Amino acid sequence: MKLAEEFHRIRQHTVQLCNRLETEDYGLQPVSFVSPAKWHLAHTTWFFETFILKPHLLGYKPYNDQFHFFYNSYYEALGARTLRAERGQLSRPTVREIYDYRSHVDEQMQRWFELADTTEFEDLVILGFQHEQQHQELLITDLKYALSLNPLFPAVLDIAEQEKISSVEGFVHIPEGMYEIGFEGDGFCFDNELGRHKVFLPEFSIDANLVTAGQYQSFVEAGGYESPEHWHQEGWEWVKNNHISHPLYWHYTEDSWKIYTLNGLKPLELNAPLAHVSWYEAAAFASWSCKRLPTEFEWEVASPLLGFGSRWEWTGSAYLPYPGYKKLPGALGEYNGKFMVNQMVLRGASVATPEGHSRATYRNFFHADMRWQFTGIRLAE
Amino acid sequence: MKLAEEFHRIRQHTVQLCNRLETEDYGLQPVSFVSPAKWHLAHTTWFFETFILKPHLLGYKPYNDQFHFFYNSYYEALGARTLRAERGQLSRPTVREIYDYRSHVDEQMQRWFELADTTEFEDLVILGFQHEQQHQELLITDLKYALSLNPLFPAVLDIAEQEKISSVEGFVHIPEGMYEIGFEGDGFCFDNELGRHKVFLPEFSIDANLVTAGQYQSFVEAGGYESPEHWHQEGWEWVKNNHISHPLYWHYTEDSWKIYTLNGLKPLELNAPLAHVSWYEAAAFASWSCKRLPTEFEWEVASPLLGFGSRWEWTGSAYLPYPGYKKLPGALGEYNGKFMVNQMVLRGASVATPEGHSRATYRNFFHADMRWQFTGIRLAE
Amino acid sequence: MKLAEEFHRIRQHTVQLCNRLETEDYGLQPVSFVSPAKWHLAHTTWFFETFILKPHLLGYKPYNDQFHFFYNSYYEALGARTLRAERGQLSRPTVREIYDYRSHVDEQMQRWFELADTTEFEDLVILGFQHEQQHQELLITDLKYALSLNPLFPAVLDIAEQEKISSVEGFVHIPEGMYEIGFEGDGFCFDNELGRHKVFLPEFSIDANLVTAGQYQSFVEAGGYESPEHWHQEGWEWVKNNHISHPLYWHYTEDSWKIYTLNGLKPLELNAPLAHVSWYEAAAFASWSCKRLPTEFEWEVASPLLGFGSRWEWTGSAYLPYPGYKKLPGALGEYNGKFMVNQMVLRGASVATPEGHSRATYRNFFHADMRWQFTGIRLAE
Amino acid sequence: MKLAEEFHRIRQHTVQLCNRLETEDYGLQPVSFVSPAKWHLAHTTWFFETFILKPHLLGYKPYNDQFHFFYNSYYEALGARTLRAERGQLSRPTVREIYDYRSHVDEQMQRWFELADTTEFEDLVILGFQHEQQHQELLITDLKYALSLNPLFPAVLDIAEQEKISSVEGFVHIPEGMYEIGFEGDGFCFDNELGRHKVFLPEFSIDANLVTAGQYQSFVEAGGYESPEHWHQEGWEWVKNNHISHPLYWHYTEDSWKIYTLNGLKPLELNAPLAHVSWYEAAAFASWSCKRLPTEFEWEVASPLLGFGSRWEWTGSAYLPYPGYKKLPGALGEYNGKFMVNQMVLRGASVATPEGHSRATYRNFFHADMRWQFTGIRLAE
Repeated sequence: MKLAEEFHRIRQHTVQLCNRLETEDYGLQPVSFVSPAKWHLAHTTWFFETFILKPHLLGYKPYNDQFHFFYNSYYEALGARTLRAERGQLSRPTVREIYDYRSHVDEQMQRWFELADTTEFEDLVILGFQHEQQHQELLITDLKYALSLNPLFPAVLDIAEQEKISSVEGFVHIPEGMYEIGFEGDGFCFDNELGRHKVFLPEFSIDANLVTAGQYQSFVEAGGYESPEHWHQEGWEWVKNNHISHPLYWHYTEDSWKIYTLNGLKPLELNAPLAHVSWYEAAAFASWSCKRLPTEFEWEVASPLLGFGSRWEWTGSAYLPYPGYKKLPGALGEYNGKFMVNQMVLRGASVATPEGHSRATYRNFFHADMRWQFTGIRLAE
Repeated sequence: MKLAEEFHRIRQHTVQLCNRLETEDYGLQPVSFVSPAKWHLAHTTWFFETFILKPHLLGYKPYNDQFHFFYNSYYEALGARTLRAERGQLSRPTVREIYDYRSHVDEQMQRWFELADTTEFEDLVILGFQHEQQHQELLITDLKYALSLNPLFPAVLDIAEQEKISSVEGFVHIPEGMYEIGFEGDGFCFDNELGRHKVFLPEFSIDANLVTAGQYQSFVEAGGYESPEHWHQEGWEWVKNNHISHPLYWHYTEDSWKIYTLNGLKPLELNAPLAHVSWYEAAAFASWSCKRLPTEFEWEVASPLLGFGSRWEWTGSAYLPYPGYKKLPGALGEYNGKFMVNQMVLRGASVATPEGHSRATYRNFFHADMRWQFTGIRLAE
Repeated sequence: MKLAEEFHRIRQHTVQLCNRLETEDYGLQPVSFVSPAKWHLAHTTWFFETFILKPHLLGYKPYNDQFHFFYNSYYEALGARTLRAERGQLSRPTVREIYDYRSHVDEQMQRWFELADTTEFEDLVILGFQHEQQHQELLITDLKYALSLNPLFPAVLDIAEQEKISSVEGFVHIPEGMYEIGFEGDGFCFDNELGRHKVFLPEFSIDANLVTAGQYQSFVEAGGYESPEHWHQEGWEWVKNNHISHPLYWHYTEDSWKIYTLNGLKPLELNAPLAHVSWYEAAAFASWSCKRLPTEFEWEVASPLLGFGSRWEWTGSAYLPYPGYKKLPGALGEYNGKFMVNQMVLRGASVATPEGHSRATYRNFFHADMRWQFTGIRLAE
Repeated sequence: MKLAEEFHRIRQHTVQLCNRLETEDYGLQPVSFVSPAKWHLAHTTWFFETFILKPHLLGYKPYNDQFHFFYNSYYEALGARTLRAERGQLSRPTVREIYDYRSHVDEQMQRWFELADTTEFEDLVILGFQHEQQHQELLITDLKYALSLNPLFPAVLDIAEQEKISSVEGFVHIPEGMYEIGFEGDGFCFDNELGRHKVFLPEFSIDANLVTAGQYQSFVEAGGYESPEHWHQEGWEWVKNNHISHPLYWHYTEDSWKIYTLNGLKPLELNAPLAHVSWYEAAAFASWSCKRLPTEFEWEVASPLLGFGSRWEWTGSAYLPYPGYKKLPGALGEYNGKFMVNQMVLRGASVATPEGHSRATYRNFFHADMRWQFTGIRLAE
């Protein structure tokens, strides 16, 4: 029954994240890459209903036939679905109805744990856990983005966004050599971590600490956003077209920098790790610092020597398949593989990542202009 | 105290329109020309606070300083405001808080009615009534648009959208002559109706009835949307670029036409007046019928002989100032005049128009591609 | 043979307008509303081939079957055609080939004038003349727009763009009364001028002179483009979205205003009539001057008392059909009628209008944001 | 004097490529990523003037001060320049004037070769050669794109676009091992090839032949463009948004596939290597074939065993810096480094590549949706 308990724990955590939300907050979708909180609540439920209850619980009837259309995310193999950009336009089903849907699926899952021989589906259930945890993080970062646009700067969640870096160590040196990259062992991992393989790395050094808000502020104040010198061409166009002049959520008011956090507008803590920069900004800052971003391989090799866990760290690696990469069979084959172009790898974890969700081989990925996640910078040379 | 009673009656009516809404419904803004229900509730309240309470109630303090930023609509003279397209992204203030704001302003208005000599401000208060009534209609039509995008086709209001036309009369003939156009008399009118002036009209005939859904269905089925012959060039581009093939809210399912109403999806009533067509469609249908749209002057002259009140009727007249048109002084000068270009005049009223709000000289106006109002067609020749 | 001579004269004039062009100049199409010079040369030729030679010259074979696709402008009834926006991408047929096409059609027209009984087609031939004259004006204004984007400011044509206004008269007063509007008589007119009809006008005054560049410069320097006060809402959005701060072709360099003319960059002549303003600018300037634009009816009634001919004058009238308006039969029915929405009427003529082409009843029309024609302002009150 | 001769040879070749062009062909720019032929002629000349003559030929005066503004491509460090998208709008300087500019710079370069001690600048001159050769290829492919939009399908150049593949060998096997990647030796290479470094590769097989048009036709006919199964998500969106259903330049007419070549429209040669596919198409085809694209490292290691030279071959590698990558100093530092994000590497050369220009370590790069180059596919597994 350990699986059932874990199921209960993870499902509850999602609900707890929402306990200071107003009904109105659940529906916001200010841009298409942000999903409403209510959609996350329903979609994670749909995942268990679609991949466990429907195929594997004898006699299970879909809770509501229309929900499949509403809450499928991007699985082409599973048929038509609400356009991503229109998720925020659906006032019905209501928040209340979605919580009812959650309760129903939770009960049926409970029944399934009790009645069925779940051994053969354990991997699938755990994938559901991991999936829900990924949406817990998205729920937090999507909410932050949506609420940040409100001049009232609402406070709905208290997480350690600006915890100071205590460590004072400098760069760690790693010798040239042949290293093994990718997941190995018993626990869970995603398909994109598999295919453990040898990689030869020249020697390198990597900073034991993340870049702080204060260090980045120096770049801002040195005119970093005003000259193309350190930017990739696309980065510079992004800066100019979007009138970017500082990280996301920074506000300069009353002669000092503030930052919007999920707990409201706060003074910018200079000794805390920088957050909410795009890859373009990370790369420009690294160039200005006469350093570079580590590759994802360097990062993975050095990871035992690094503290990590408060920021997703942009690497210099594009998101591509490992040698021998194989997609999962069926609709779940769309989980990771089809995104392997034009995205950059991030390693680590963030203050919004559920405990135990990430690991040293975990490969997160976003487009180079995205910065609504808790993204940060670590330098290498 | 008659003014106070009327105030109470009109303010209550706005609230009553919302009594079947879920909290989530109040926030929808699927396109920028549609405002959320909660915004209408707050903006009409802001209007009384801004133009009556702040300048004329001694010692009145704004309910909330930020609300001015949130709920100013388009008055440039009154300073910065929320971008129109972003009204739907504001989960806070909540629906509950907006109702509290309404109550507060209603109480203070009550106090003002009791304490102040309101005689000199009667026109301003009545403008506030008319303004709120205009937003009552927008609230209805904006809700209809927003909910129509939900595959659940929610039912939230029962108004007589598809009442059959009983009359069987044909065209009414009006002789050539000099006629007087524009408002005259004691009651309220908008500035754009003033400047009563003589207009010479050639003889004309005008249909005593509105075009029905059934008549328009014939146009649809005769391939009206498939050939450019009867369309203005811009109309034809609008048809092609937006893949238009029928009036808004029509759905062809299970071998028959349905129509989305605020009371849910219903069979299309062929004998009811057509609704939700753009000016482009109205003009193309008129040409296909070997007729034309009446001018706004013809309409006004013939109006005593016409039943009207269920559809806003597109005319062949562009929305332009009457001779000697004068804007109101101050910020209210922006009420009408600045919109007098690239819009077409509609006359009449609709099933969504509050009783007593419209009159024969009333000039409504929309862009030629707009059709989310209850717009219909009357033919002339 | 008078018709044949007129044909020759008009066709030659088109060619003469191009005599200082380089081959490269003929192909420019910087925006979709501007057509390349070579397209004008070919399209006017196509008009005679399509409407005269093909149907009425016995045994005539199309010069080149593909030219119909290339040089049809907007006649839906005549089949598929090159997209307007792509006219500038066609390096072939070359300029030389288009001149050959012109010669061929001119010769065949000559043959037709000699052999055929042209009496019955005289109206059609004259429509062809008028059509070619309209394109002569477009050829000039399109060239000006295209070459104005070149930092070399090429000079290709010397027309009296900045001739000073000598007259010193003020406003002319016209009494209230019933007037006749529209074309009457023997000569040519377009279908949109027909339906001469009575219009009753209140008394009004109209300026005997056009607004000068100097008067408009005062508006610019008084911050006319920096405050929304005098603008229509759409006009103000146009100003902000397009960063407009002065009329088209004005350049402020070396401490003074210059203007790009077809004869190169010149100092702005303050006593010359203003040119190249949009309707939005015209209306804002009129409001700032505490005046208004005349209606097209006022203009026509006053026209015998006005000098006109150097600028197309924006009126306060929307472009709509006169009572009893009838389209021409067949494809030529698309000549005017299908444009009668969302455009404003201009009266008069411009320095680019061929002599004898315009008249007091002539109705030109453009969208309110267009200003690449020689458009000017006359005030009324 | 060998450098001078090579200069002459390369400069002449650029001109020869244009010998069947009409003056009008030189100016076409149908989309912003395509530059006009005349721009290539001028920009390559500007390169020698800017980097050799101005700094290193004593007393040299710029041919025309404005040309710097016109013909700088993307060097931010060198100041303002014509917007890329507007290169096609400049009828002046004319083609004749640009050829005069070329002659002038060629003469001055000749003088410089004769007078100066060029030893120290040899690398710079050779970079100019390589640069001109890159533009020779762009000139060909840009012309092809621009002329392909003309329904007359002009023929202007005869290159071996559809030469059949004679070889019948299958896949070549390469054992796992440590390999050296990157340029080494005496000749010229770009900065992005430097930093020769060790890479460990697992064993792999690679096709000795390129994918043919016939093989790809099978994919088309098997519905390859109609189902998302084998596509990356961005690739599938690209297919749907752009209505893609076959490679660029393919036309299905009269019951068979044709292909537009620079020598006109021709029957599709099924045994010739496929050309003009995007990376998205390459990756989807590979997946459909149960294979994959080789990495750029695999390609480089296997290259001695492969015939190559007719198509740029998409690899599975993103365009990123090699370990220890260093930009050139000064403005030339912008040559390659700033493009290292969101592009994919292509290896090999194409029928449009000047002889001797490419080599096994050459790294070409384009965005995943680009296909106007002669891009092809080689499979690996």
